[in-house]
Amino acid sequence: MKKIINQPKAFVDEVMEGILFAYGDRLRFLNGDKRIVLSNEETSAGKVGLVTAGGSGHLPLFLGYVGQGMLDGCTVGNVFASPSAQKMANMICACDKGNGVLCLLGNYGGDRMNFEMACETAELEGVPTRMVIARDDVASSPKSLAERRRGVAGMIYAFKIAGAAADQMMSLDEVAEIAQKALDNTRSMGVALSPCIVPEAGVPSFQIKEDEIEIGMGIHGEPGIEVRKMLTADEIAYTILNKILEDMPVSIGDEVSVMVNGLGSTPLEELILVYRRLYMILESKGISIYMPHIGEFATSMEMAGLSVSVIKLDAQLKKLLRAPANTPFYTSVNK
Amino acid sequence: MKKIINQPKAFVDEVMEGILFAYGDRLRFLNGDKRIVLSNEETSAGKVGLVTAGGSGHLPLFLGYVGQGMLDGCTVGNVFASPSAQKMANMICACDKGNGVLCLLGNYGGDRMNFEMACETAELEGVPTRMVIARDDVASSPKSLAERRRGVAGMIYAFKIAGAAADQMMSLDEVAEIAQKALDNTRSMGVALSPCIVPEAGVPSFQIKEDEIEIGMGIHGEPGIEVRKMLTADEIAYTILNKILEDMPVSIGDEVSVMVNGLGSTPLEELILVYRRLYMILESKGISIYMPHIGEFATSMEMAGLSVSVIKLDAQLKKLLRAPANTPFYTSVNK
Repeated sequence: MKKIINQPKAFVDEVMEGILFAYGDRLRFLNGDKRIVLSNEETSAGKVGLVTAGGSGHLPLFLGYVGQGMLDGCTVGNVFASPSAQKMANMICACDKGNGVLCLLGNYGGDRMNFEMACETAELEGVPTRMVIARDDVASSPKSLAERRRGVAGMIYAFKIAGAAADQMMSLDEVAEIAQKALDNTRSMGVALSPCIVPEAGVPSFQIKEDEIEIGMGIHGEPGIEVRKMLTADEIAYTILNKILEDMPVSIGDEVSVMVNGLGSTPLEELILVYRRLYMILESKGISIYMPHIGEFATSMEMAGLSVSVIKLDAQLKKLLRAPANTPFYTSVNK
Repeated sequence: MKKIINQPKAFVDEVMEGILFAYGDRLRFLNGDKRIVLSNEETSAGKVGLVTAGGSGHLPLFLGYVGQGMLDGCTVGNVFASPSAQKMANMICACDKGNGVLCLLGNYGGDRMNFEMACETAELEGVPTRMVIARDDVASSPKSLAERRRGVAGMIYAFKIAGAAADQMMSLDEVAEIAQKALDNTRSMGVALSPCIVPEAGVPSFQIKEDEIEIGMGIHGEPGIEVRKMLTADEIAYTILNKILEDMPVSIGDEVSVMVNGLGSTPLEELILVYRRLYMILESKGISIYMPHIGEFATSMEMAGLSVSVIKLDAQLKKLLRAPANTPFYTSVNK
């Protein structure tokens, strides 16, 4: 596997420089700190701040969703590693506009621990904070231990929905409640076909045979549920959707949004083939799809594979999902 | 290499079904023909139609740019193969709103020949037509034989700019002139790191060693200029930009847009590293970048590598580039 990089040690800082060179009209670094990205969007005084943080290597996640209608800030760690609590605290304080800051993060030990410390620091500075944690990956733990599940691409629905709620000047508690509701209605699962290489490590993140697929693998190469012989697009759609709907049943007449997310090197055509079958299965159950999301939303660099996220929508979530957004990697203009 | 597909023979038709399932609110098939995609956008009577056509396997190219502010229609061939002249003619006639149709295509033998026949057929039906052909790939032929060059990702700038011109109710000749001007100001070049597999063929499209990179390779695996030992992100940026600027010099004070286009399995982080160096080189020459495009715009399924396109902008091109657009895979909302 070949990587288009310079010095592996400089990888993250150079990516961050490139991000600023490309999107400096919309993003800035906090006091020149390349690991803290803030939106240039002028938001109203009193708007609840919405922030996240996480390791690098998942673009567009996390920082790609900083901007109008979504996140106000993002703290960026090394590849697949949490950023520090201190940087998170600096970001939280910078994103407070008088009514506090909601931290929306994935359920990873480092991110959670550091955000907890960061929130304590920010509270001492007088900034009210709340944390809402994404645990959408149904493959990462059984339902009986759902609080241990990892957060994956479904988190992006929560960014979008909570971002719109904050824009509507809801209070910190209300935005936290909406974010939690979005996540309670979201389930995800992924499959992996090939590993990625962390630049500083230089070796593949896991091994998998040329005719095999790993079901339920995490976005850092965390082991999945089982390794199978390669499946067709239709079989992948069935397998993932069955597991998701077992966990979060849907009924005739329900409306959902579906995200088919490429992990890095899976062609768009293949994502669309999986979407096709998901649509057919859901349609046969009387479920309609609203605002499908097909593309790369949360990657693992050059990992091959995909994840599917399903969010059950009610009128409130639907309205917040369709609200306009304009960030470097998520633009939505509904008519 | 593993592919997430069903029957290889059904690949294109199933992708097209998936496209309609996902974007049926914005796209439709002409008379149920899965290979002819039309925009549902209601355009004004008299607006010049803007269409393209090409082989499958390059998503978002070509059909992903059908929609508001860009293309009115697209005819879709098999993987890496031109669609038929008859289907193109049907599309052209369907996209005429009284003032003719501009066909914007890449310089590939099949596409050109079929579009020529299609235009003849349409003219016999009373539809005025013009063809404008993209030849932006500087690696595909020397400058002295520039008319033989292939069209690659730079074509998307022409879709965007000509689409905006058509929306402004310019005449067929004027839209053709603007499209030609955009292309005259655009140069592209790519590098490839690994091949793709055409589903029905089932074997890699070319061979390349694990420590090598091919400079100037085409998006169907057409041979490039040379094979080198793997380069860094910075070296790739230098190599491509030198070749482009040799062909299309820029002067201090010029403004350009730059597209760094992933060919399918190159991580977004790596595209951003290349963009970073392009920005630094251009900045050192006094050239500023307007509306950078970083992502996957024209792929070769799972090919690894990238292309860079540079378009020199004047006030007119800039205004047309920034005009709003909203298609399944290109959304632009400038403030």
